[in-house]
Amino acid sequence: MGRTFVVVGHDAATGPDFHVQDLPGSAGRLDVLVRCVTSALLVSHGIREDVTVYLVLQGPPDPPKTVRLDGARLRGLNPDERSTALLVQKALDLHMAGPVWRESTPGVAVSERGLEDLEDELEGALVILEEGAPDAAEAGFPEDPVLFLSDHQDWRDEERALLEAWGAEARGLGETPYHADQAVTVASWLLDRRDG
Amino acid sequence: MGRTFVVVGHDAATGPDFHVQDLPGSAGRLDVLVRCVTSALLVSHGIREDVTVYLVLQGPPDPPKTVRLDGARLRGLNPDERSTALLVQKALDLHMAGPVWRESTPGVAVSERGLEDLEDELEGALVILEEGAPDAAEAGFPEDPVLFLSDHQDWRDEERALLEAWGAEARGLGETPYHADQAVTVASWLLDRRDG
Repeated sequence: MGRTFVVVGHDAATGPDFHVQDLPGSAGRLDVLVRCVTSALLVSHGIREDVTVYLVLQGPPDPPKTVRLDGARLRGLNPDERSTALLVQKALDLHMAGPVWRESTPGVAVSERGLEDLEDELEGALVILEEGAPDAAEAGFPEDPVLFLSDHQDWRDEERALLEAWGAEARGLGETPYHADQAVTVASWLLDRRDG
Repeated sequence: MGRTFVVVGHDAATGPDFHVQDLPGSAGRLDVLVRCVTSALLVSHGIREDVTVYLVLQGPPDPPKTVRLDGARLRGLNPDERSTALLVQKALDLHMAGPVWRESTPGVAVSERGLEDLEDELEGALVILEEGAPDAAEAGFPEDPVLFLSDHQDWRDEERALLEAWGAEARGLGETPYHADQAVTVASWLLDRRDG
């Protein structure tokens, strides 16, 4: 089952009409999300085939949508923000995205699902990765973790309640407040050491 | 003295005539370097004031040049690649960059120095961060480390010989081959835990 990351973008674009040269602005901080994608899925000269990333997009014009990137099937993921954002934009450009996943490019699929619709398909032990939670370096991560991260904003109360109702445990990375993509990188490193 | 990162971009642009929307191509993988900058200097909602980053640029048209970013004086560094690349581009647009540092924007300076010219101004204990070296999580880092990283390419023999002649120790991050910016993030996290 490997590792799964679910990143919620509270303002992130849900349609293709944004400028890839202005991800922080016109795309609702999609830059944060694409950095999480590359942090989770790429190592030097390769893609992590055991990693899946879900980007839960909640911004205008048509929320929610979720883009799923599957490391085992991805082709041509590059480490720069722009090319990853183009993959997301292509997914959002699919007409009639519905409740069923539709693939836009190899390994990239889109649906109209929101966070609350993902419970059934997430296989593994759920973990909320957030500031102030018990230290992951000491408490460890469960096997086959599904790690939930919020973008640059805090979790909404209802989101956190949902994840707790699903049985998610919380883990943190110490005192320093990291960006979401930095947290993805450190969590991946901790898991590499444990699983390597 | 804090922490210093020195990142060598073997093909990275040394003039301002590149397209910020094509950092991997027209700017000689400047995308790698700007991700190292943001990984080293930014935490959530803030700049690390005790961190300095040197980008040693060795690509066309006018190598070498080095851009220095000083966390204590930086204003307006954002986490996305494009805005950081614009800061570097502005530095490279300064006419008559010479052996002396010239400031282009607050906290960002440029000079015609190359790696071999930096010895005198780097204060701290020199560390080469690279694959296969003794594990930093076990061997630790020295106090006030100056961490040298290569971009997506291996060190040149003469560069490595230079760093060794300066007394640099080597450290690694385990079996997985990480991107340079990922290595910066993990090293920063390890240092945060030690120094926090």
